[in-house]
Amino acid sequence: MSILVLGTAALDTVKTPSGVRKKMLGGSAVHFAMSCRLFTRVHLVAIVGEDFPARYVDFLRRRGIILDSLLRGAGSTFHWAGEYEGDLNTALTRKTALGVLASFCPVITASQRRIKNVFLANVDPDIQRSLLDRMEAPQIIALDSMNYWIQNKRRSLKRMLKRVTIYVANDQEARSLTGEHNLLKASRGLLRMGPEMVLIKKGEHGVIFCCDKYMFSLPAFPTHEVVDPTGAGDTFAGGFMGYLSRAGKLNARTIKQALVYGTIVASFNVEAFGLDKTSLLTVKDLGSRLQQYRQIVLF
Amino acid sequence: MSILVLGTAALDTVKTPSGVRKKMLGGSAVHFAMSCRLFTRVHLVAIVGEDFPARYVDFLRRRGIILDSLLRGAGSTFHWAGEYEGDLNTALTRKTALGVLASFCPVITASQRRIKNVFLANVDPDIQRSLLDRMEAPQIIALDSMNYWIQNKRRSLKRMLKRVTIYVANDQEARSLTGEHNLLKASRGLLRMGPEMVLIKKGEHGVIFCCDKYMFSLPAFPTHEVVDPTGAGDTFAGGFMGYLSRAGKLNARTIKQALVYGTIVASFNVEAFGLDKTSLLTVKDLGSRLQQYRQIVLF
Repeated sequence: MSILVLGTAALDTVKTPSGVRKKMLGGSAVHFAMSCRLFTRVHLVAIVGEDFPARYVDFLRRRGIILDSLLRGAGSTFHWAGEYEGDLNTALTRKTALGVLASFCPVITASQRRIKNVFLANVDPDIQRSLLDRMEAPQIIALDSMNYWIQNKRRSLKRMLKRVTIYVANDQEARSLTGEHNLLKASRGLLRMGPEMVLIKKGEHGVIFCCDKYMFSLPAFPTHEVVDPTGAGDTFAGGFMGYLSRAGKLNARTIKQALVYGTIVASFNVEAFGLDKTSLLTVKDLGSRLQQYRQIVLF
Repeated sequence: MSILVLGTAALDTVKTPSGVRKKMLGGSAVHFAMSCRLFTRVHLVAIVGEDFPARYVDFLRRRGIILDSLLRGAGSTFHWAGEYEGDLNTALTRKTALGVLASFCPVITASQRRIKNVFLANVDPDIQRSLLDRMEAPQIIALDSMNYWIQNKRRSLKRMLKRVTIYVANDQEARSLTGEHNLLKASRGLLRMGPEMVLIKKGEHGVIFCCDKYMFSLPAFPTHEVVDPTGAGDTFAGGFMGYLSRAGKLNARTIKQALVYGTIVASFNVEAFGLDKTSLLTVKDLGSRLQQYRQIVLF
């Protein structure tokens, strides 16, 4: 089944110990889509500005991503500049220029309103709500956010959490929203806020999934060289949601497989700048890394 | 097969968000032995002072730990006082009074010299060497250390690393000894220093194992309540080495099972102060938690 992703399409300027890249194609919805396309048809809902290069649009289209609801606004594309040091786990944001994102009001087509799987990637929770209000009968709704919205739009975000199937957070966000350091306690706290399921991404330390009935924990795929972790979380979510959409059902088995595929795709993301590696991936690449992951983890 | 563990027997004063305990029984060799006894016969090599309570000796003996080489020296028992805050991942050391440990020279019996499996828990690397020199033909030699020796006895420690089968480190120690932040690179760096195998403990984030032929990564068992993490690393090592000693061979299958058992026993350690939980454990307790762990991790 198809999936619809709402989020950002951005120009990313990134500095890591491996080098610098200026105004690469990035953004939460783009990273998600680049990963999710390996599993299912992805409809991207985002806005770009007048400066957004035509070659980036082609780049996305050639990878099968459906761009019917990629708006072009008057102004500049959302630009994020950040830097990673030492452990590469935390980005230091150097610049955030919202540009056209500041007045983004998502518009989707009549047929897109009937898509059953929705991923609300990190944007203002009020924009996430306006999109969700337009959907006719979504079945799996997953939502990601960030500390900025937890601090500045906590009420909007918490209202959204009552409406979603899966809340996808990172460890810092889970702690910040619940005030609990222990991630199991934080997961329980998040579940009490409304979502049926909670997925906590821990970066190089893997992922924890919780719902009322079961809990899973998986390590990340061990990587020798982290070049640029930007977008790893959205890449993970793309693999996770892509697998679930293709499976067409939500149960312990499909969720666990989805977590594994999210882990695998995310491991490619961090090995190169931006989309350099994920845009070249094929299902076959996933298969061979999955084989290695099985040997590393299964007992 | 039996195992011989050299390390500390200590009095631990620990403060965590769950409370305070004064002069509990602790120490690297004691935590290791309390876990390892679930798998095989453990010979403990350590020193205590005149103040070491007789009830602690009884406590160890009643759990089947062989105390032929537990020396009693003139002076005080090694006393460590530490505190954990917030994330409970890092101990703040408040006091270290070496006492009789300062002049510890391990003595073992003639039959102990022929034991094939040796764990050199965290003590001065020169003491570790003096014990190893006494062993006749050890087959599996594992060594643990700490940042203090990496900084103050680096040459002695590095000389020991050339003689061991398995170097057991935590993530900070691996990074500090190699200067590499990435744990896979750090593992490779450690392997170049001599050990055949490297095991890196990451606390709540699980464990990574590396050798030339294979690599494993496992998450920790997710725990709701961390009461006191003191000794978790040694408890892990006790389960790991205990399983390997019982299995009697070192291959990919036995190592992975050993990592799983180390993970399981360590998860009990952190749920209570000191040895409160591990001293009551039975093999049956391990079995039921192993069942849960399988559901959490296997896919």
